[in-house]
Amino acid sequence: MDNAATSWPKPPGVEEAMLLYLREEGGNPGRSGHRLSLAASRRIFQVRLALAEFLGVKDPARIIFTQNATEALSLALIGSLNPQDRVLSTAIEHNAVSRTLSFLRSCGVDVEIISVSPRGSLDVTGLESALKRKKTKMVVVNWASNVAGWTIDLDEVSGLVKRYGALLLVDAAQGLGHLPLLLSDRIDDRIDMLAASGHKGLLGPQGTGFLYLGPSSNPRPLIYGGTGSASSSDEQPGFLPDKYESGTLNGPGIAGLGAGLGTLLKEGVIEVARKEACLAATLAKGLMEIPGVKLHGAWSEEKRVLSWLPQHGAEVRMPASKNPVTPADDGTAAESSGGVVNARTPLAGTDVGDGRTPVTTRAPVLGVPGIPDAVAVVSMTLEGWDPAQLAFELDRRYGIMVRAGLHCSPWAHRTLGTFPTGTVRFSPGLYTTPDEIETVVSAVKELAIERKGG
Amino acid sequence: MDNAATSWPKPPGVEEAMLLYLREEGGNPGRSGHRLSLAASRRIFQVRLALAEFLGVKDPARIIFTQNATEALSLALIGSLNPQDRVLSTAIEHNAVSRTLSFLRSCGVDVEIISVSPRGSLDVTGLESALKRKKTKMVVVNWASNVAGWTIDLDEVSGLVKRYGALLLVDAAQGLGHLPLLLSDRIDDRIDMLAASGHKGLLGPQGTGFLYLGPSSNPRPLIYGGTGSASSSDEQPGFLPDKYESGTLNGPGIAGLGAGLGTLLKEGVIEVARKEACLAATLAKGLMEIPGVKLHGAWSEEKRVLSWLPQHGAEVRMPASKNPVTPADDGTAAESSGGVVNARTPLAGTDVGDGRTPVTTRAPVLGVPGIPDAVAVVSMTLEGWDPAQLAFELDRRYGIMVRAGLHCSPWAHRTLGTFPTGTVRFSPGLYTTPDEIETVVSAVKELAIERKGG
Repeated sequence: MDNAATSWPKPPGVEEAMLLYLREEGGNPGRSGHRLSLAASRRIFQVRLALAEFLGVKDPARIIFTQNATEALSLALIGSLNPQDRVLSTAIEHNAVSRTLSFLRSCGVDVEIISVSPRGSLDVTGLESALKRKKTKMVVVNWASNVAGWTIDLDEVSGLVKRYGALLLVDAAQGLGHLPLLLSDRIDDRIDMLAASGHKGLLGPQGTGFLYLGPSSNPRPLIYGGTGSASSSDEQPGFLPDKYESGTLNGPGIAGLGAGLGTLLKEGVIEVARKEACLAATLAKGLMEIPGVKLHGAWSEEKRVLSWLPQHGAEVRMPASKNPVTPADDGTAAESSGGVVNARTPLAGTDVGDGRTPVTTRAPVLGVPGIPDAVAVVSMTLEGWDPAQLAFELDRRYGIMVRAGLHCSPWAHRTLGTFPTGTVRFSPGLYTTPDEIETVVSAVKELAIERKGG
Repeated sequence: MDNAATSWPKPPGVEEAMLLYLREEGGNPGRSGHRLSLAASRRIFQVRLALAEFLGVKDPARIIFTQNATEALSLALIGSLNPQDRVLSTAIEHNAVSRTLSFLRSCGVDVEIISVSPRGSLDVTGLESALKRKKTKMVVVNWASNVAGWTIDLDEVSGLVKRYGALLLVDAAQGLGHLPLLLSDRIDDRIDMLAASGHKGLLGPQGTGFLYLGPSSNPRPLIYGGTGSASSSDEQPGFLPDKYESGTLNGPGIAGLGAGLGTLLKEGVIEVARKEACLAATLAKGLMEIPGVKLHGAWSEEKRVLSWLPQHGAEVRMPASKNPVTPADDGTAAESSGGVVNARTPLAGTDVGDGRTPVTTRAPVLGVPGIPDAVAVVSMTLEGWDPAQLAFELDRRYGIMVRAGLHCSPWAHRTLGTFPTGTVRFSPGLYTTPDEIETVVSAVKELAIERKGG
């Protein structure tokens, strides 16, 4: 129930890909010309290519591997902004953006924060008047909030930002893998930079993340050093991705990310979005009915909850295996799993297989109707309980692992009115079952009664 | 034979520790309070503690995890130096230092390079006069050269640097794990910052590295963002290690690094140093006798070679297992392996065990006599062969994996006189056998004859 912090368990194939890399591809990519080094280079290129295809980016060199989304955001922000530059952001950002902006403000960058309504929608009019008021270099927005599940309409925001000639940087850490990128146009024309982590919606291991760099983005590197290329030069190479990838990459992690992405594509991002919305709605509905519970953010709205509730006997479609240790026997278990509500989307193809074959994906997902406008992040408070205490009891007594507090996003809590104690956050993931949702609801019910009686 | 790029294979236990982390400790460390998150925090703390003990650092919070040594060096250099500051370095630095210094020079930092003799010794008199000439903020030196195996006397350099009130930053990427830190005093009093990678001498997986930060070092972070601590603040927390560890760390990699370090300590750094010196000397002696071969750097000196040649029937002591896949049955195989030349050093204790028990180490290794003054990096050129071509044939025909070219260190090659084609570099490691050394010598012998006849 803490998949927004990091997805768990990892899907079948992630471990295998990491071990394969360690054992048989363990050279230093780009550093030597022997077989292990070439195998390592090849694997990393495959994953880069798969991510590029997943995003709908033509040139895989525009995917820059980082240790996490935070590093990607720091590279994009610190590398692009200079004193006197103006940057706009929103009142629901994660500390990965807000702390970086605070640092940049102390360097003389002009930072302005656009408000977000307590119901969650970005004040687009406010954004437009801020853009109109003064020449702006960059707008940085959170695609999906890690506190309240809110998403923003990237198409609408992008249209506005482009109209005023600014760069758009998207923090996709909580959105990518959970929702398709519903863009009306190629990502290159819509988004200038996109940062994401590999260990959340993309189902890879921790220690992975990336920054997509559009054609008009050219930040200074954060880190300088050996790239295995243009070795004779004292200058950082100017070409991508080497310019930004100094030092030895997390090869085993990137190989695992490739396998995680493969599983995601096998399941289908659209399927995943629908399944997670269904789980979130079921959870929200159950919690709503408990006296003393207050929901915050996207899944507090009854209309949204009702529209995603499983109805007419529909079941939540489960992925092939919950067990990350045992891969599907024949590699096709995903196809044969029961309880499928929606037909397999034709956009969800992949040939990742056993981690040995190339990772190939299909075109990006464009304009698919019926996709939720929120991710499966359900934030709540319970009368009489401190969020931290509630989370502790949920883990101790029921084995339910959730996150309590501010979730590194104080701005979002100020917006929601839940600052400073925060919320208890449930974030079901691909491997969460309807039974587990039921368990959560019963547990909260018991704790609610207990407190009232106590 | 390319262990200077990345050690391979990884020792038993590394894979197991990574899998254990993924499966049973897979939470997001410091981000939530449930069991998986706490287990992740605990594992990372254990490895931090083990590294601190290994270095002889009291406070484990002074070990900052990074993705690699390059990131650690950029953090130390870019975070500490301002325009007008003066920094001294040497003519054998890796691009991780030299490219970063080039960037800093373009920002107005005053960079001066101290010469290194073609035989390899740092010009200490030159360093002293440079320190005397002008107030210097920092000196950055390569402990062990990745091209020529040269090491510098850290005690001597530190004494000099401290006398002039400058900070000492050590690039220990090629030294740590291969040689003990032979300091006459606590590391805190000798070295202000030390950067190392986890995947070379420390036998961990790629994607790991760290920066040790001494009490007088306080660089600006390179990366800003969520730390799971002091979440309500828009400012980066001021305390260590959080200040420098924004975003989700490479947990599986760090767990693997703990296991790699455990193996290293079980073998004993002193044993490893002696074994690797013995292998390097055997290799250098064999190559020296081949007509057309020219050796460069430390192992080109006959005196050094002779002093490390296995004599009087001595054998190279082999570690427990060459196979990283199969751990020792009873966890004690290291004790029972044959061919031990030197008694187990009492400094080499550890209780890493199966990756589940705490990683504990012993005090740092101080003043042990008979330790080589070079790491096992043997660089050569062969008359009539381009290094790249030679490396290709060694891999294709003999399965010998080496690195050819500049090894990301153009300055070192200018010093050696091997710029711009570079050298063929052999870097035997813990798991290299004497038989493999023999194979290399025969292979080079054949290729030397072939070329002469062609």
